[in-house]
Amino acid sequence: MSLVLTNARILTMDAGLSEYANGWIAIEGDTIQALGEGTPPQGGETLDMGGDLVMPGMVNSHCHMTMTLFRGLGEDVDDRLFRYVLPLERECVTPRTVAAGSSLAALEMIRGGVTTVADMYYFETEVGRVIERSGMRGVVGQTLADFAAPDHKTFDEGFALTQELAEMFAGHPRVTASIAPHAPYSTDVPVMARIAHWSHDHPDVPVQIHMAEMVSENKWAEKSYGMRPVQVVDKAGLLKPGLIAAHCLFVSDADMDRMAEADVRVAHNARSNAKAGRGIAPVEAMRARGIPVGIATDGPMSGNTLDLFSQFAPVSMFQKLLGNSRKPMPACEAVRMATLEAARVLGMDQRIGSLEPGKQADLIRISLDDPRLLPVYDIYATLVFAAMPGDVRDVMVAGRWLMRDREVQTLEAPKVVADALQIAGEFNARIVEIDRRKA
Amino acid sequence: MSLVLTNARILTMDAGLSEYANGWIAIEGDTIQALGEGTPPQGGETLDMGGDLVMPGMVNSHCHMTMTLFRGLGEDVDDRLFRYVLPLERECVTPRTVAAGSSLAALEMIRGGVTTVADMYYFETEVGRVIERSGMRGVVGQTLADFAAPDHKTFDEGFALTQELAEMFAGHPRVTASIAPHAPYSTDVPVMARIAHWSHDHPDVPVQIHMAEMVSENKWAEKSYGMRPVQVVDKAGLLKPGLIAAHCLFVSDADMDRMAEADVRVAHNARSNAKAGRGIAPVEAMRARGIPVGIATDGPMSGNTLDLFSQFAPVSMFQKLLGNSRKPMPACEAVRMATLEAARVLGMDQRIGSLEPGKQADLIRISLDDPRLLPVYDIYATLVFAAMPGDVRDVMVAGRWLMRDREVQTLEAPKVVADALQIAGEFNARIVEIDRRKA
Repeated sequence: MSLVLTNARILTMDAGLSEYANGWIAIEGDTIQALGEGTPPQGGETLDMGGDLVMPGMVNSHCHMTMTLFRGLGEDVDDRLFRYVLPLERECVTPRTVAAGSSLAALEMIRGGVTTVADMYYFETEVGRVIERSGMRGVVGQTLADFAAPDHKTFDEGFALTQELAEMFAGHPRVTASIAPHAPYSTDVPVMARIAHWSHDHPDVPVQIHMAEMVSENKWAEKSYGMRPVQVVDKAGLLKPGLIAAHCLFVSDADMDRMAEADVRVAHNARSNAKAGRGIAPVEAMRARGIPVGIATDGPMSGNTLDLFSQFAPVSMFQKLLGNSRKPMPACEAVRMATLEAARVLGMDQRIGSLEPGKQADLIRISLDDPRLLPVYDIYATLVFAAMPGDVRDVMVAGRWLMRDREVQTLEAPKVVADALQIAGEFNARIVEIDRRKA
Repeated sequence: MSLVLTNARILTMDAGLSEYANGWIAIEGDTIQALGEGTPPQGGETLDMGGDLVMPGMVNSHCHMTMTLFRGLGEDVDDRLFRYVLPLERECVTPRTVAAGSSLAALEMIRGGVTTVADMYYFETEVGRVIERSGMRGVVGQTLADFAAPDHKTFDEGFALTQELAEMFAGHPRVTASIAPHAPYSTDVPVMARIAHWSHDHPDVPVQIHMAEMVSENKWAEKSYGMRPVQVVDKAGLLKPGLIAAHCLFVSDADMDRMAEADVRVAHNARSNAKAGRGIAPVEAMRARGIPVGIATDGPMSGNTLDLFSQFAPVSMFQKLLGNSRKPMPACEAVRMATLEAARVLGMDQRIGSLEPGKQADLIRISLDDPRLLPVYDIYATLVFAAMPGDVRDVMVAGRWLMRDREVQTLEAPKVVADALQIAGEFNARIVEIDRRKA
């Protein structure tokens, strides 16, 4: 036994939500060997968790890590995508930018208890390298889109980048390459069909897409095909087992039935969707059909923070608002959607998402001593409505500590921050110019 | 000059949102003497703020501080009011309970940057004493209700308690007594009319009420008077200048017009309303009519945390959802509703809510060095969508430090927590009994 964590209040987040009031976890290498209550096994190093909460690391099922560099830019500006984001992406997003922004994101996520992230952006090999270096686990999705993307001018170039990415991380224990058509309207059916075909030949490379996110997308689908966005994705053959569909706000009952049948999974970005004034995804209705739904932050330009604590209250409140009752989306279900269910969304639930023997040792330790967290009548309610990223004390992925006592071990925080701020300064100069030209 | 804070990034939150990038604030006794940018005045002690953000202390315009003791209890249970809250309040809420719960609340609020709170509950003289001891500023409202309240069996007894409270804190520099009819349905028109009359003779005692909060309240008003709740309050003569009305979810255009005309102020409890599945208050519509709206936490059984950072994102997102756009409720407006506008809700905007010469020195210092807060393109967006209570470093009320470097100076944190946990243990025993009896 290489390491035994003792004196822990354990939430396993397994299917039955098993808990251990005074628990222990035995870890060998990257794997949980055993866990239980009472007298811990002897032999190997032991580490006293001081009665703190230990639970699975959280899984952020949709993110654009690089966009930390855009956080808070053009907030409340309706046309910020065309005014700021697209010009800045075209002119300023390079491998250096991606490495810097993703590093800041990894730093923040580790500090907030996120151990696995599904990313989609450009120069995604850089994101993969950052995830690798940070010790996190990640699905890194090369985005393909028909607007002038920073790293490809044609879809052929996009496929080549994806191929490179898939080869670079083939068999990697923590980094999984992914292909990410941006959205139905920005790839259209022929490219989605080509991706479906490519994906069939690369079964270990998950597909991520933004789907049914915007009213304008509905209009495009209606105008182009007389269909709803989900139907267009289906027509292209991409609505298939394992598809990770982000957003899914505008899904009809028939869409959801078809998504369930096709074994599609959903990344739910509550804050991002609401901040854009787009609406509330019908999470309860999707889950009632057996569609796995994971909590996600979206990019930090959309949702601002990258921890899942900040998402919990919106995820819960929005479903209670939709249901006009206090009962929908009980707190334990929100926590499930940040752990085991999110792992299922990423197709990784056999390896992570819960603390069970044989699973990877991805776990976080949370202090419950802040006055704001007390008293604790219902630990899930405490996590969902009162806990915050700063309450996370230790973070482990694959048996390796990424944070101890709030000190990230794998990234040099001051350098990460300095690099990001330097690029933000460069962005700012460009923003001043854009605003001057528009004025 | 007794104290000059230097090297501060100052958000004054005055009407024009003046800012000082490298600012100073000169404080004499409890009062801001002057503030500005550049070379600070000489003489007196100086304190370097290290480039941190300094802004007005936040104003929580509606709370039930004692209910920290109920935090997280019966979360997601639709009938929790009748199942848990009312029995526990009747049997277990005593002056000792109120002192303990309010102390935990004060500890949490100071740590979260709240310097002023409007409370309404029972045994409110105890709450006033806690506020006094904690160094905070507060409006303490004695609740009057027709259900078996823990501290009065008749309205006559309730008025006597209010009279005692008003006398105890008459002329107090930081604690303001208030009278708080619970809600239209739990006082009815004759008692509200009596309160309106009493209030006329006690112009320094603000009136607080829960108004237009629930569908059942609409039904009561319709059935009893063929009116809407706001009209019932108006009929009783209570819809008058300075009324602090909490919630105001179910207000029609005509209701809002009348509220504006009557100079009523609103405490907006975004998280609480949403968590109960009740709905979203039309904040933009009220503010467009000139009704001041302050951000509030409600009691911690309803909203769980007592800092205003946790309210910011919901306040903003909900109005963006109502408006189907990113534009409603810009970030700076949310911050205004937590400072100067909230002070106006409590009738205290001549003394607090912004950093201006002659105003009370109620201010907070916020560190902006957490990776989650970076970069800062728009400081208001950073506050609204990324900052958290743990980022607050120092807190001052009336020129006195209540917290330095995250250490609360005025309350003995370990004792406050131990006292609260002991009572929570007693509650828990009672809860187990209730659940056993119901099972």
